[in-house]
Amino acid sequence: MVDDVAMDGVFHALASGARRDMVARLADGPLTVGQLAAPLDMSLAAAAKHVQVLERAGVISRTVDGRRHICRLVPGPLASAQEWLEFYRRHWSERLDALEELLAEDFAPPDAPVRPRPAEEE
Amino acid sequence: MVDDVAMDGVFHALASGARRDMVARLADGPLTVGQLAAPLDMSLAAAAKHVQVLERAGVISRTVDGRRHICRLVPGPLASAQEWLEFYRRHWSERLDALEELLAEDFAPPDAPVRPRPAEEE
Repeated sequence: MVDDVAMDGVFHALASGARRDMVARLADGPLTVGQLAAPLDMSLAAAAKHVQVLERAGVISRTVDGRRHICRLVPGPLASAQEWLEFYRRHWSERLDALEELLAEDFAPPDAPVRPRPAEEE
Repeated sequence: MVDDVAMDGVFHALASGARRDMVARLADGPLTVGQLAAPLDMSLAAAAKHVQVLERAGVISRTVDGRRHICRLVPGPLASAQEWLEFYRRHWSERLDALEELLAEDFAPPDAPVRPRPAEEE
């Protein structure tokens, strides 16, 4: 589990469509910075800045092979962010279920027509 | 599912320990802005700004009852963010499992002693 400050960085890293697109493509395997930039509608320099944000957040790692900068996903920090959200989702889902049951029990409209039982219909 | 720009806002809303703390407490039920601010080490004005960020991102809604501003969690946007992360987590977990199997099969050390077959041991 990453600490609170690191978690800030991970969520900040994900707060950009371009960076989420990079993460999504890196889930299929390593890519160079050039490959990460190629499909995006921005300069290589702008894309490289997004890569830097991901790297500082620990979401990706970068290895240099001559002139190629190869980026890889680091699953740990993303998993921590996912677990944080999952925990609260489970919690509020349970609360919503409990509320729904309560409403179904106690708030049937008082003037709702009482349907006759099948036996009385004939 | 919220759109890409809305998703930016949701992840940005979560990129702060104070705002994650607010979300965590709102998962237990509605709170006023004053109640949200109380345990945090910051002014009411600073806390109110964090509440505003959560509200703009659609993560919470606020209803005004006289002087009380009551905040409630809106589960939809948070669930979208969680699903986004869950999708990629499942994806890279599968890739890691596949890689592990591959390593176990193909990269047994070449100088590992070859165990004789049971029949040859006698």
